[in-house]
Amino acid sequence: MDVLKEVFGIWYLVGAALVFFMQAGFAMVESGFTRSKNAGNIIMKNLMDFCLGTVAFLLIGYSFLCGADVAKGVIGWLSFSNGPLVDFAGTDWSTFVFNLVFCATAATIVSGAMAERTKFISYCIYSFVISLVVYPIEAHWVWGPDGWLTAMGFHDFAGSAVIHYMGGLTALIGAYLVGPRIGKFNDDDTPNGIPGHNLPIGALGCFILWFGWYGFNGAAAQNGIQLATIFATTTVAPAIATVTVMVITWIKYGKPDVAMCLNGSLAGLVAITAGCDAVNVFGAFMIGILAGITVCFVVWLLDYKLMVDDPVGAVAVHFGNGALGTLCVGLFACGTDSMPAARGLFYGGGFKLLSVQALGLLSIGLWTVVLMSATFLIIKATIGLRVSEEEEVLGLDRTEHGLENAYDGFAFESETYAPKAFSSSDFTPIEPPHVNTESKQTTSTMHKVVIITKSDRFGALKNAMNEIGVTGMTTTQVMGCGIQKGKTAYYRGAKVEMDLLPKLKAEIVVSSIPVDTVVKAAQKALYTGHMGDGKIFVYEVTDVVRISSGVHGSAALKYE
Amino acid sequence: MDVLKEVFGIWYLVGAALVFFMQAGFAMVESGFTRSKNAGNIIMKNLMDFCLGTVAFLLIGYSFLCGADVAKGVIGWLSFSNGPLVDFAGTDWSTFVFNLVFCATAATIVSGAMAERTKFISYCIYSFVISLVVYPIEAHWVWGPDGWLTAMGFHDFAGSAVIHYMGGLTALIGAYLVGPRIGKFNDDDTPNGIPGHNLPIGALGCFILWFGWYGFNGAAAQNGIQLATIFATTTVAPAIATVTVMVITWIKYGKPDVAMCLNGSLAGLVAITAGCDAVNVFGAFMIGILAGITVCFVVWLLDYKLMVDDPVGAVAVHFGNGALGTLCVGLFACGTDSMPAARGLFYGGGFKLLSVQALGLLSIGLWTVVLMSATFLIIKATIGLRVSEEEEVLGLDRTEHGLENAYDGFAFESETYAPKAFSSSDFTPIEPPHVNTESKQTTSTMHKVVIITKSDRFGALKNAMNEIGVTGMTTTQVMGCGIQKGKTAYYRGAKVEMDLLPKLKAEIVVSSIPVDTVVKAAQKALYTGHMGDGKIFVYEVTDVVRISSGVHGSAALKYE
Amino acid sequence: MDVLKEVFGIWYLVGAALVFFMQAGFAMVESGFTRSKNAGNIIMKNLMDFCLGTVAFLLIGYSFLCGADVAKGVIGWLSFSNGPLVDFAGTDWSTFVFNLVFCATAATIVSGAMAERTKFISYCIYSFVISLVVYPIEAHWVWGPDGWLTAMGFHDFAGSAVIHYMGGLTALIGAYLVGPRIGKFNDDDTPNGIPGHNLPIGALGCFILWFGWYGFNGAAAQNGIQLATIFATTTVAPAIATVTVMVITWIKYGKPDVAMCLNGSLAGLVAITAGCDAVNVFGAFMIGILAGITVCFVVWLLDYKLMVDDPVGAVAVHFGNGALGTLCVGLFACGTDSMPAARGLFYGGGFKLLSVQALGLLSIGLWTVVLMSATFLIIKATIGLRVSEEEEVLGLDRTEHGLENAYDGFAFESETYAPKAFSSSDFTPIEPPHVNTESKQTTSTMHKVVIITKSDRFGALKNAMNEIGVTGMTTTQVMGCGIQKGKTAYYRGAKVEMDLLPKLKAEIVVSSIPVDTVVKAAQKALYTGHMGDGKIFVYEVTDVVRISSGVHGSAALKYE
Repeated sequence: MDVLKEVFGIWYLVGAALVFFMQAGFAMVESGFTRSKNAGNIIMKNLMDFCLGTVAFLLIGYSFLCGADVAKGVIGWLSFSNGPLVDFAGTDWSTFVFNLVFCATAATIVSGAMAERTKFISYCIYSFVISLVVYPIEAHWVWGPDGWLTAMGFHDFAGSAVIHYMGGLTALIGAYLVGPRIGKFNDDDTPNGIPGHNLPIGALGCFILWFGWYGFNGAAAQNGIQLATIFATTTVAPAIATVTVMVITWIKYGKPDVAMCLNGSLAGLVAITAGCDAVNVFGAFMIGILAGITVCFVVWLLDYKLMVDDPVGAVAVHFGNGALGTLCVGLFACGTDSMPAARGLFYGGGFKLLSVQALGLLSIGLWTVVLMSATFLIIKATIGLRVSEEEEVLGLDRTEHGLENAYDGFAFESETYAPKAFSSSDFTPIEPPHVNTESKQTTSTMHKVVIITKSDRFGALKNAMNEIGVTGMTTTQVMGCGIQKGKTAYYRGAKVEMDLLPKLKAEIVVSSIPVDTVVKAAQKALYTGHMGDGKIFVYEVTDVVRISSGVHGSAALKYE
Repeated sequence: MDVLKEVFGIWYLVGAALVFFMQAGFAMVESGFTRSKNAGNIIMKNLMDFCLGTVAFLLIGYSFLCGADVAKGVIGWLSFSNGPLVDFAGTDWSTFVFNLVFCATAATIVSGAMAERTKFISYCIYSFVISLVVYPIEAHWVWGPDGWLTAMGFHDFAGSAVIHYMGGLTALIGAYLVGPRIGKFNDDDTPNGIPGHNLPIGALGCFILWFGWYGFNGAAAQNGIQLATIFATTTVAPAIATVTVMVITWIKYGKPDVAMCLNGSLAGLVAITAGCDAVNVFGAFMIGILAGITVCFVVWLLDYKLMVDDPVGAVAVHFGNGALGTLCVGLFACGTDSMPAARGLFYGGGFKLLSVQALGLLSIGLWTVVLMSATFLIIKATIGLRVSEEEEVLGLDRTEHGLENAYDGFAFESETYAPKAFSSSDFTPIEPPHVNTESKQTTSTMHKVVIITKSDRFGALKNAMNEIGVTGMTTTQVMGCGIQKGKTAYYRGAKVEMDLLPKLKAEIVVSSIPVDTVVKAAQKALYTGHMGDGKIFVYEVTDVVRISSGVHGSAALKYE
Repeated sequence: MDVLKEVFGIWYLVGAALVFFMQAGFAMVESGFTRSKNAGNIIMKNLMDFCLGTVAFLLIGYSFLCGADVAKGVIGWLSFSNGPLVDFAGTDWSTFVFNLVFCATAATIVSGAMAERTKFISYCIYSFVISLVVYPIEAHWVWGPDGWLTAMGFHDFAGSAVIHYMGGLTALIGAYLVGPRIGKFNDDDTPNGIPGHNLPIGALGCFILWFGWYGFNGAAAQNGIQLATIFATTTVAPAIATVTVMVITWIKYGKPDVAMCLNGSLAGLVAITAGCDAVNVFGAFMIGILAGITVCFVVWLLDYKLMVDDPVGAVAVHFGNGALGTLCVGLFACGTDSMPAARGLFYGGGFKLLSVQALGLLSIGLWTVVLMSATFLIIKATIGLRVSEEEEVLGLDRTEHGLENAYDGFAFESETYAPKAFSSSDFTPIEPPHVNTESKQTTSTMHKVVIITKSDRFGALKNAMNEIGVTGMTTTQVMGCGIQKGKTAYYRGAKVEMDLLPKLKAEIVVSSIPVDTVVKAAQKALYTGHMGDGKIFVYEVTDVVRISSGVHGSAALKYE
């Protein structure tokens, strides 16, 4: 039997590693389902809630959760000299690692709901607080030695309530307090969909989460049969939830929605988490259906009724289905071998278990609402919770991390929402100088020079233009279409038609600098004598206006 | 010994989790190696074949595969009351989960070969059928209690034949029946390479598959030495196959092909699957070489001889190497400790094992061809197998799932193939009104013609321009901003404002070719009579310089 | 006890699979943190060093490492008939697989530091040599039977020195010998940051590496308590290192740097690798802090002092922290249960262990410098180490693998560095003919208004245009090229030249709406009074044709 304990001890740690890997899943889901201008920021938040959470958990969190009970199952404690930082030999490091990765999961749920507008420093503080105090104490009630909820018969095997409902509720509070993203809701309170920028990576995140969930739900199993049933329920519930969401979205929108179905998988996983060891596969099947309905309903509720902006659906997945899953134990627990006493309403247990589960949700909910509201409100009142409108529009990557572009070299922003602060009614109307249409019966004195050349010549061209005093140009990546002899590309053995070549298009408008000078300088900079050197086109320009000054004509081209 | 059984029971489930993770690998490979306009669709198909497969397997599939034998090793069955949905305590859930994830692997192989043109609903039906009936019965022959093939001595440890050959054959049938993608084959039957849109994510998928394969091949191991040899053969074969493909492509195309090498790794993994426990490392080495050759040959065969369009190479990888791997057991099985009786042709076993392996391929092949052809043909005759040409050109994300863009905000399409239906010969020639060249009192002899039209009309436009002697044009992906009536897109249930549409901007500067000719030819090529046909703008050009020669004016536009 | 051995035997193999998965992590990190034009090449290098390494290790490498000692702990050997290719039954395949995946890790470290400019064939040769001879012999000193360093008391549990320091040192030699990328260093020796093209996938790679590291550090554990403490130290060190880097970059650059923090996680993992079983959690905490400092310092050192271009920070992570981690065993080893004899300077062990650790670094360093310098110099002198300037500018995907674009259909290159060979001074100036400005006396009634402004002002502009009756416009994402004062961006501590800014280009063609009205409305909508407000250009339009109706002139601009 000692050997068997050692065996499950290893599996316990392998499970913890799988739960750690879920951090990658969260990072990919949250980054994929938000906009590219915040991709670095959301990954950084996911990374830091694990890392800062480790510090918090090491300092005090672990003591609150796993320390000997000091107040009727409500709180645990270890003296400093018995804490993990000092007492190395006396600490159960399996328990430590396992609880740490679970704690980090609770913390990371929130980042998605508050994505794209929350200050990084404020997120760090929130994240530290939840791992230091809020989660450890509440988790002690259920998983600590002598936790009061467990003593009452509350059953939450892997954390539908302790982690997902709690994290999702925090996400709801946070998303509500930080307010919706610019452009999310119209003046008539209808929501706008703001699509994520990278569905494949978001989908990968969902698959990673599902994979990691076998560790999340299974790690604490005590024997092989229990583990097998956990694997079965943990597979059936998300599969059925996904199918349910597919059917719902197919009926509702006429087409099966991809992102919603991926959320459906996660919803089923969250909902089965509490009872994965206590329900049978038929129960898991039913829980899957309910989870699919719940996730669709809560997404709709937030968008259309509560006006809360949750970019990745974290509230629907974790709060909605965390609560559902906790209650479902009270409905579907069927007295399995490993939980013979746990019987829900539909399996002869009456309302007893169901009411304890509801009590658990109530207590954890109350604790979370009070503590987390306080935390967010204090942050809001002091350093602030939200970035400025300008920062939000520019993207948090740039403004919070000095990262120009998470996809340097090929991602351009396409921000389609005008910040309210910039709407035209807010401006003191300025009288733009009259456009001299008559000034242009002409031999125009302004010209646009357009240069089409190889992309890699940009630097040479830029230097040449700087030398003759050109202070600005606009460049576009275009595709030059032409036939290039003697060049063949293959893809998996089949020829690729080579008629599209990436080219650089540079546009320069000049007046005081003679167009002649510009053309000559460009020729000199780009000439190699080969066919691919490109061409230069000259056009007349009728008028130019500099917006910031309202100046027209060639004067508008000076300085900047 | 009981403890040891428990130990391998846990490993069996960990292995199953790894096999589940292979779903992520397939999703990434198939999405990365196809075009971005179908990225969401292919991921959805991968997700749903697992989820629908779970339903099918739970309902009947498991009974067919793992139920007690009812017909001489050909079919298993469980009464409804003994099935997994009802008899929770009596079901071996380890076996259930393990066989379910294997079943899902067989189903998912097909999606890649039929990618980018198969109707989603039709794929769902196929996927349900394969998991409900086709795979479970065939797998029963080999892995069921008393399966007839195993009774004859057939050896397929982890499914080269049962899963990969069977799935790959279905992929071949499906790809043949659904027909090639628009633009894949030219009129002279030569193939065009249609490169995937995201190589890194496709490569990640391959690494995930290789990682998961240690579970796929190893999960059913019964002792440590067997497991270690399986890990060794499962490492050596794909490594050698990859090197072989590198050498072949280096010789054949002058450069080592990345996508082909990644396919080579998968080919080696498929080929070693049947004999991973029965061959030694020298055998794995040889199987790796043969796998590398096979995958290159079958890709060539499909592209150049059979004219079957398999976007991700699934047929070459799974069908070709599944068959190879099954036969190689009959060649290289060396009588290992765990399979002392299995000896192939090169290890003193004569032709006996080889012929049984061939018989297995034949029976499984026949079963698959009959059942799957029937399934696909019934689907084809009823609801149809393939999307319309317009849907295919627009992409399945948009048309099947209402998903505007899997990479919102930074991915523009660049469809380079003109659908046949739109080729200029199909249009009733309309007589475009005369171009009033006199309305523009000008003396410039050079004009720029700018055409804004739908992205997918590029091919038609290019051909039309070539015909009238235009030798170069510059194209840019732009966003046309306008309101389109009657079209609504949803993202997670919220409406997406549809005011930005990707368009193609083509710029052509002409002198000797009359601007009139260019405008007429463009009109003819692009006309369908719908609002979205686009517009043509004409500008005067002041001057043109060809950089490589220094020539100015209309002479600069000649040749190239 | 036999059972327990079997249990840890399975875990050993699971750990090896996790270490294999680290190859995916390296591939994603290296591809994400370099430019898209080399994405396929870097993945191919990662794939091939594993595959070629397998060949090398199978042929001779394994014999050098695990063979019986033939020269005082310096070198092992197996006769050909006892080697793994021949003696299947006599080989310990667990040991083989485990050592193979470790060997591949050592090899793969180098690809990142030499990325974007190293010839593929040369990389293959280097990779083969390191796996054939250099790594196996050096690893024999520590992990072989009777290795001389281990016999002296040297402690490197999972390879801070044997793998990371050795691989990182090779990376340093390679990066130095191959020279910096074009554009990395300015003439005044200041470095330019060259941002990677896909941060999310790079971040995913880091998470995968961290996940895999639980196998890397834990696989060789002999009992449950040892494994648990390894998991704890392997979690705490990287978490603290990441926090440390966040603090350092926040102070130094004013903002917490995402890519640097991800490097910080890897640094912590490398540094804890040697002593993961020998230090306590407080030690891991301190090692984490030191690792964070070290990685920042070495990145700075290479960029600003040594002028060595290491695109992904491999030298800082692996060489710097490999050395640090090895020495830290001599400082923080605390006499754990599994290593009671190993006590460092701070735990009563005096300088003894520290000096042995230093000796180990010295010997391994000397061996590596001599062997690897010779290898690289021979390659350089014969087939060459580096691609041509043209190939480097075009990208290695295209030139080395015939792969046009790893992101076909949506990635355009934006090469911003002009190769020196193309600098303007090399050209013979040519005399362009005079531009005929007088040729254009016209009075067109149609105008094109072009507006270049900030991307985020699109909504405001669109609304303003709608209000005055403009029904269509075409938008393009362009890059405005100009100098912006007072704004500095950093990438991994190096300044990014800020001369390219994403801008929106909107084109509107009007006739009945006076051009004046359009210009005024645009001015009003876009005006804030700052320099970045943009400019408006007006051009004459010669003609417009609506394709769907064939109507010409201003009528073609009505409705739609």
